[in-house]
Amino acid sequence: MPLSYKDAGVDIDAGDELVERIKPLAAATRIAEVVSDVGGFAGLCRVPADIEDPILVSGTDGVGTKLKVAFATGVHDTIGFDLVGMCVNDVLTCGARPLFFLDYFGTGKLDLGVAERVVGGIAGACKECGCALLGGETAELPGMYAAGEYDLAGFSVGVVARKKLIDGASTSEGDSVIALPSSGLHSNGYSLARRVLFEEMKLGLTDRPAELGGQTVGEALLVPTRLYARAVRTLVDAQLTVHAMSHITGAGLPGNLPRVLPEGLGVRFDRTWSRAGVFDLLVKGGVDENEMRRTFNVGIGYVVIVPPGECARALELLRSSGESPWVVGRVVRVPQGRPFEERVEWPS
Amino acid sequence: MPLSYKDAGVDIDAGDELVERIKPLAAATRIAEVVSDVGGFAGLCRVPADIEDPILVSGTDGVGTKLKVAFATGVHDTIGFDLVGMCVNDVLTCGARPLFFLDYFGTGKLDLGVAERVVGGIAGACKECGCALLGGETAELPGMYAAGEYDLAGFSVGVVARKKLIDGASTSEGDSVIALPSSGLHSNGYSLARRVLFEEMKLGLTDRPAELGGQTVGEALLVPTRLYARAVRTLVDAQLTVHAMSHITGAGLPGNLPRVLPEGLGVRFDRTWSRAGVFDLLVKGGVDENEMRRTFNVGIGYVVIVPPGECARALELLRSSGESPWVVGRVVRVPQGRPFEERVEWPS
Repeated sequence: MPLSYKDAGVDIDAGDELVERIKPLAAATRIAEVVSDVGGFAGLCRVPADIEDPILVSGTDGVGTKLKVAFATGVHDTIGFDLVGMCVNDVLTCGARPLFFLDYFGTGKLDLGVAERVVGGIAGACKECGCALLGGETAELPGMYAAGEYDLAGFSVGVVARKKLIDGASTSEGDSVIALPSSGLHSNGYSLARRVLFEEMKLGLTDRPAELGGQTVGEALLVPTRLYARAVRTLVDAQLTVHAMSHITGAGLPGNLPRVLPEGLGVRFDRTWSRAGVFDLLVKGGVDENEMRRTFNVGIGYVVIVPPGECARALELLRSSGESPWVVGRVVRVPQGRPFEERVEWPS
Repeated sequence: MPLSYKDAGVDIDAGDELVERIKPLAAATRIAEVVSDVGGFAGLCRVPADIEDPILVSGTDGVGTKLKVAFATGVHDTIGFDLVGMCVNDVLTCGARPLFFLDYFGTGKLDLGVAERVVGGIAGACKECGCALLGGETAELPGMYAAGEYDLAGFSVGVVARKKLIDGASTSEGDSVIALPSSGLHSNGYSLARRVLFEEMKLGLTDRPAELGGQTVGEALLVPTRLYARAVRTLVDAQLTVHAMSHITGAGLPGNLPRVLPEGLGVRFDRTWSRAGVFDLLVKGGVDENEMRRTFNVGIGYVVIVPPGECARALELLRSSGESPWVVGRVVRVPQGRPFEERVEWPS
């Protein structure tokens, strides 16, 4: 009998079926600028006509081993929110309006139900961010992934007028540092978190340690990454002066905040803040506070830096968009040449 | 002793070192429109000012289990050409100028040397396509990949004036179908090819079967995907009328050619053509010609469809850019409603 591609573990019919199931999900994310439907060689999206000297802002990211928690719990419908959040929150930091998103889904053997739930999450998150799910690739790679596992990569493109690009260059001493809360670990530090919770503390996914306030370990680890698009766009659309924004991901506040600070400036946190219980559980499990700070977001998912005179209006706008912002500190002068990760001063 | 992220298998220092090694590679791909350097939250690229009503054309893809051949041979410096080819060749089909590329590299434990060679290939291919390597994500996911393995996803964005968008809509009966040769399997059908060559035929990577004309099996399987950017851009820049273009990937000619043909039209191949020896080896190994045609590119990597009056000039322009094009057939009328994959008529 002649050999077929299907014999070799690649089912083109299943792939086609998935494309059919994805079409309505993607269609629901359509924005006015989209030209094509999903399924052609490429996704087409117009550059909005009202943006002067448009700059495209693009980012790519994955969700790390948070995936392992999705596999272990069988919950696949929120990991797409993490993927979109990781990418689109980055694009937002430049003041850009998110335009579109594409995903890559790699797996050993395509499970239609799982893939559909993952892409459903991606589409839901895209819709919430106002960006179109413009395309994607589902790759069936026999022998590359363990049974039931997959990897995800996301790509996002936004656009901003050159004059409105936010790059941190105008950040000044005395600027207000506004924090937006994270929902939990978002999508960073999971290899450490899983090791601490499952190996050191011997917790199970369905355990409910006191720190989690009734949540199971699995639930706490799967809380989706927060999407800051609506809140941040509210600020930008209101023409508020924003000096810098930072998405707090891998390497935490000391790794991400100085990325948008000019040389010679740092951030002094002058108050403490509350954070999700999972962070305290990790401290209990043996991660010291320094390692916490340079691995996890420790409760702050996104930071907005504004001139002090704009601070009250920024807080009001953020609250009106449903956020719970708080002023966490201010921009201070630090010695020239101070290393990147030492330009954040913590509350004592 | 407190637990660190490094203990859990994620080495942020190695990731930072990789970013430093990638910087000069990416810098060498810089185009005039690039605003930022690699390393910020997002990549920045201006929309070229001379393009009226610009449409962004985006595509994402992976390289399938061609990766397994890279792992087995230890040759990691060309798989990046495959990744860029898979994505950028798609973007070209709309008549777009490729602008930028981003990559996702997922692995269990980061091997700096391997990652650097992979990204070096990506950068080399980007340079050849005239697009900037604008960013990327290197994800270390302990426990997700077998030792020494990784997955790759690529993402490319190009731009075209709305009036110059090539979408196949004006393709007409009698149009000339010009083929550009593939170099081999490119990046599709590897699960089947590997099964046939290694399991059915019991060949090894260093074997030199007669069909390969002196090449080893490993070499034949690793021949990089051809990059059609220079040739296709020569046509577009010369304002030649192109009705449709197709990148021949998974599902072969019958799966990709009709994607750019209006309903009621098909393609009749009126001559045969030569192809790389690896295709004949696969036939010898038990894949029948029909399965070959709907799985592999069978020697044609890219197709350009032009009005007959433009054919001679198209061939001349393509040859001047270093291509070896040939007229392989023409567009014919087929019954309305004929299934997609039956709209290609093969030479007898």
